[in-house]
Amino acid sequence: MLKGEQTWVFQSKPSIISSATVGGPFEAAGAIADDFDILHDDIWIGEDSFEKAEKKMLEQSFQTTLSKVNLTSKDVQFLISGDLMNQIISSSFTARTLGIPFLGIFGACSSSMESLALAAQLVDSNAANYVLAGASSHNVAVEKQFRYPTEYGAQKPPTAQWTVTGAGSALVGKNGTGPKITCATIGKVVDMGISDPYNMGAAMAPAAVDTIEKHFKDLNIDPSYYDLIATGDLGRVGHQIAADLLSQHGLNIPKEIFTDCGLLIYKKDQPVMAGGSGCGCTATVTYGHLFNRMQRGELKRILVIATGALLSPLSYQQKESIPSIAHAVAFEM
Amino acid sequence: MLKGEQTWVFQSKPSIISSATVGGPFEAAGAIADDFDILHDDIWIGEDSFEKAEKKMLEQSFQTTLSKVNLTSKDVQFLISGDLMNQIISSSFTARTLGIPFLGIFGACSSSMESLALAAQLVDSNAANYVLAGASSHNVAVEKQFRYPTEYGAQKPPTAQWTVTGAGSALVGKNGTGPKITCATIGKVVDMGISDPYNMGAAMAPAAVDTIEKHFKDLNIDPSYYDLIATGDLGRVGHQIAADLLSQHGLNIPKEIFTDCGLLIYKKDQPVMAGGSGCGCTATVTYGHLFNRMQRGELKRILVIATGALLSPLSYQQKESIPSIAHAVAFEM
Repeated sequence: MLKGEQTWVFQSKPSIISSATVGGPFEAAGAIADDFDILHDDIWIGEDSFEKAEKKMLEQSFQTTLSKVNLTSKDVQFLISGDLMNQIISSSFTARTLGIPFLGIFGACSSSMESLALAAQLVDSNAANYVLAGASSHNVAVEKQFRYPTEYGAQKPPTAQWTVTGAGSALVGKNGTGPKITCATIGKVVDMGISDPYNMGAAMAPAAVDTIEKHFKDLNIDPSYYDLIATGDLGRVGHQIAADLLSQHGLNIPKEIFTDCGLLIYKKDQPVMAGGSGCGCTATVTYGHLFNRMQRGELKRILVIATGALLSPLSYQQKESIPSIAHAVAFEM
Repeated sequence: MLKGEQTWVFQSKPSIISSATVGGPFEAAGAIADDFDILHDDIWIGEDSFEKAEKKMLEQSFQTTLSKVNLTSKDVQFLISGDLMNQIISSSFTARTLGIPFLGIFGACSSSMESLALAAQLVDSNAANYVLAGASSHNVAVEKQFRYPTEYGAQKPPTAQWTVTGAGSALVGKNGTGPKITCATIGKVVDMGISDPYNMGAAMAPAAVDTIEKHFKDLNIDPSYYDLIATGDLGRVGHQIAADLLSQHGLNIPKEIFTDCGLLIYKKDQPVMAGGSGCGCTATVTYGHLFNRMQRGELKRILVIATGALLSPLSYQQKESIPSIAHAVAFEM
């Protein structure tokens, strides 16, 4: 049900029936390694291309999500997934493997919460009993496509972020013991004119701020409602900009409850510049680390705002700035 | 509401409040030119790149859809759109222009009916009052990205299809005088091993057949229920394969009611090989030509099955076959 301008309130509070996360070697050495279900020490994941490696992670994530609750593809009505590869081949080819009716989406790194918001909406409106939502990214596949093959050894500025090698997925259904999805705020495209693809955090911060403000306004609540508010992958630079902008707009989120998935995933001594990014960042941090914290009773209500930079290498070459978007989903135990 | 395995039946029968179509010079010389709202005689559409030309067409389509019924962006809750450009930049940049909360989708040429099915689902479940759905493609932008720049003059086999330069969009709401959206069948990814990107019709035909069969099974109806059944952009080769496959499976659709958007859009003497294709094909044919025929009382009930080839140039280079999908939406006056 629509509440306010752009927020869906889910009357039936669909549940996370199950979730799973898969990571690569850099994530295995990260700060929340224990929260991953599967960690690979081989960046190729046994495949002959990085794109196939990403697809394999996404397949494993969905398959693990189902096997944890003894369900199979046949029990699931729809699969909703997105990724950063051109024509979202990671998701489409995974949908071929799973054989579940498929809705492909693209919101760059906001794909995790876009797919989950739609999944919850479908379950809440009886358009499905079970929906799988997921997203993935692979560091080397993304670098090759958006920037340079990593073999070139191109240097990056400290504002750049490190694309997560990982896949995360969640099974949404009517009744379960996992976190409940209470509402979702669908974001507008916001573009403040930043055109530097090595500073995506700054480009995406205003979109996160716009969605956070709309979320609180639509629901007529304030940040104290949540135990944790996590932006997607703004990283160190973008997260600080978002905090500053929110504060300027009179919305002060206490520092101790305001964090970013791109800051949670890696250790401080890992060479990730401004932090993690990529569709796999919010997906693995939320579906692994944050849900585990909720299951342990450490967090009761959380809001996750996944951010996406909607550029392409070609739009950058044509001197366009970076349109950004953010979608928020709220969970409670 | 879910009926059968993969079909949504929309209890409130959301209406097409308005729709609009934009085309290029080749479409202006085509068989259904009179059904376009805007036709450009300049393939650049006054822009300095083909990608910007595509974006401009999509913007014009959405803006015309709204202006026809004296509405503005502010009246619309969500915009759902997809296209063939990497990272769907045509849709994302259009969403920036319009400023409407945005759900980006990707289903290749099935994007038109994927976005419309989701739009109807949102309106039917009170998650929105008005939703805009659209899709676009630009012949030269697509050739450059997927195959060769047209300036190279590469030859094509007769099984190849001609990408439509066009954009089509529809505004979905609760009450209107346009066609009503009664149900939608979301397709599975089907891949019969065809890997020739110059024969997409053959690759996509089995996906169309799968979705058509599920549609009739889920609803327990037969082809005689419809006055017209139109596949998306299978073209001459793919449409014949689909008809043959359906017949082999015992589902005979009379020739006079079974057609294909890729066969309707161009004149017989235009050099389009096997017919039209691209996201703009089904979008413009459905939102222009077919809706006009419904408004004139020539058709009462129609089923449109948009097909999509979910390959990327990279998946082709890596010797993958072409996974395909089809989504069906049913309309009645």
